Amino acid sequence: MAAEIPAESLQLRSLVRAENMLELFLDTVPVAEPGPNEVLIRVEATPVNPSDLGLLLAGADVAAASAAGTPQRPAITAPIPDVAMLGLTARIGTPMPAGRLLGKKVAAAGGGMYAQYRIVDLSLCLELPEGLSAADGASAFVNPMTALGMIETMRMEDHVALVHTAAASNLGQMLNRLCQEEQVPLVNIVRRPEQEELLRAAGAAFVCDSSKPEFMNDLTAALTATGATLAFDATGGGVLASQILTCMEASASSGDDGYSRYGSAVHKQVYIYGGLDRSPTVLTRSFGMAWGVGGWLLTPFLGKIGLEGIIRLRNRVAAGLTTTFASSYAAQVSLPGALQLDNITAFAQQATGTKYLIRPDQEA
Amino acid sequence: MAAEIPAESLQLRSLVRAENMLELFLDTVPVAEPGPNEVLIRVEATPVNPSDLGLLLAGADVAAASAAGTPQRPAITAPIPDVAMLGLTARIGTPMPAGRLLGKKVAAAGGGMYAQYRIVDLSLCLELPEGLSAADGASAFVNPMTALGMIETMRMEDHVALVHTAAASNLGQMLNRLCQEEQVPLVNIVRRPEQEELLRAAGAAFVCDSSKPEFMNDLTAALTATGATLAFDATGGGVLASQILTCMEASASSGDDGYSRYGSAVHKQVYIYGGLDRSPTVLTRSFGMAWGVGGWLLTPFLGKIGLEGIIRLRNRVAAGLTTTFASSYAAQVSLPGALQLDNITAFAQQATGTKYLIRPDQEA
Repeated sequence: MAAEIPAESLQLRSLVRAENMLELFLDTVPVAEPGPNEVLIRVEATPVNPSDLGLLLAGADVAAASAAGTPQRPAITAPIPDVAMLGLTARIGTPMPAGRLLGKKVAAAGGGMYAQYRIVDLSLCLELPEGLSAADGASAFVNPMTALGMIETMRMEDHVALVHTAAASNLGQMLNRLCQEEQVPLVNIVRRPEQEELLRAAGAAFVCDSSKPEFMNDLTAALTATGATLAFDATGGGVLASQILTCMEASASSGDDGYSRYGSAVHKQVYIYGGLDRSPTVLTRSFGMAWGVGGWLLTPFLGKIGLEGIIRLRNRVAAGLTTTFASSYAAQVSLPGALQLDNITAFAQQATGTKYLIRPDQEA
Repeated sequence: MAAEIPAESLQLRSLVRAENMLELFLDTVPVAEPGPNEVLIRVEATPVNPSDLGLLLAGADVAAASAAGTPQRPAITAPIPDVAMLGLTARIGTPMPAGRLLGKKVAAAGGGMYAQYRIVDLSLCLELPEGLSAADGASAFVNPMTALGMIETMRMEDHVALVHTAAASNLGQMLNRLCQEEQVPLVNIVRRPEQEELLRAAGAAFVCDSSKPEFMNDLTAALTATGATLAFDATGGGVLASQILTCMEASASSGDDGYSRYGSAVHKQVYIYGGLDRSPTVLTRSFGMAWGVGGWLLTPFLGKIGLEGIIRLRNRVAAGLTTTFASSYAAQVSLPGALQLDNITAFAQQATGTKYLIRPDQEA
């Protein structure tokens, strides 16, 4: 094997320049020697997750992007609005390796996965069962561990059911399967009728469409039926988190005797784990005083449950990689292909059903 | 003593009518017999806390209030805007006893204290040290326990310093004294230069005026100096909570090596414990993923620390009632006096330095 490893390989880089400009390009980097607890992996498949796009695209205006370079070494530039530059000062001038995950034989977690070779810590590798492809393993980490992490968080924080937004996403469909297996009541929130149909066809008992005028009533009824007081919100912006808390409060106080100025004593929590809607989160606080909204991120959660917890969840993932935790991809592209304008535009939409798989082992 | 207790006494009531109308009046209620673990108290002094006004005024438009009744039995009516009625359906038609706290000989916690007599649970009584007046004891519970609760919460959740908004309030001045005694670094946020002067004269090391253009820079510097990652916000609405989190993140990431897409790993928390600003809370989420915003209320906090914790805090309060935990009042009024239009208007402003003490033992 060692004889096949080249001295140099390709890595996708994202560079923010002080003059409000994003550059995406492929860099030639040396293939390093792994340390004592590390392993060198050849990356054969790595997904483009919504959570990767913040680092990759840096809030740039993708619609105004332009392409340069050669087919083998494409380069993209795109202007970055002033408001997005505010949060980027720390990375100006430093080309960041992009991408997070991937695998064959092993699935591994880590940054900088949009590359041909990558050194990772042995403890972050998940050995793939026999007969699985790199594509099967490519989404073995973030989405499955996130779905399991939501249920784990629910149990740790004494809730009995879940609410999930953008519920027709790849992760949402996975969570829908997982919750049915684990007998966890799940309230799915979607934005379109066809997303509701998709989830109902996959056995979802509770689906609420936020585009319908009766959304708040539907949601309150579903919350009352499930007892859900914990939501995971992938959108982040706008009034959705506030609406969920308001409906949770309406559900919680409907069973109460009498009126309390401070609302129900039931703690209602929304964790924001994505930012599909970048506008500010607007909370009307029409839900008493027992509530919380906060960020939720996989890595600190894994730190909280410790190695033993991580191994337990990883084993659960390995057992269901082609079933419960299967992902599907709209397209597979090479590293140069990932830097085609039309593909970048498709990533940036973050629309349900447009998930891409990058295949760094392919030439073009 | 028993011979002096009348069969009936006065109680201030707040009634919401379905036709968007608030009524405030004095009701004659029977003086009941205390149960086994209860005590009947004669209420001599009870403060009008900002936290009492929600129940008392029910969001009514006080500027449009009108007065009726007699000097001894005044009655106030005021229109309630549609938006405020939304949260009031559960109390329509039920006259609520108003007010929360008080004492002489004992200070006690409980609702319905705007009354001449009141039965309370023995465990919620704090025996006042010799020589203290009813006015000294009247604010022995909510504000002191809230100030102590903030420091207690800071320690329980592994923070090392505090941020407090509306910091020139009665509670804010108390917290300023307490933090100096407890050597807890405190960042005070105020809205006016004279409030900054007041706190600095009382020994405050960090005071940031949100009306100044350099507010965000001042706040970030104070957060860096103190290491504060926990804030208690009395205002609730607008962008202040978001600004605090943004400055905490700027402070936390200034010491970091390198850039993380997800922001610093330091958890940043804002607890909203009041609603001086009723507009929505607007969060820009420009502060990474390790953050939380939530409601904070004294009663559930006391439930969390248990009886042993409550006794420890109560003893701390009793030792400092005329010093650390002293309150001052703009005016003292009788129960009928509390229903004078000009006094109600003064309560409703919730402005710093306008705190009222109700003296149910006085005739007018």
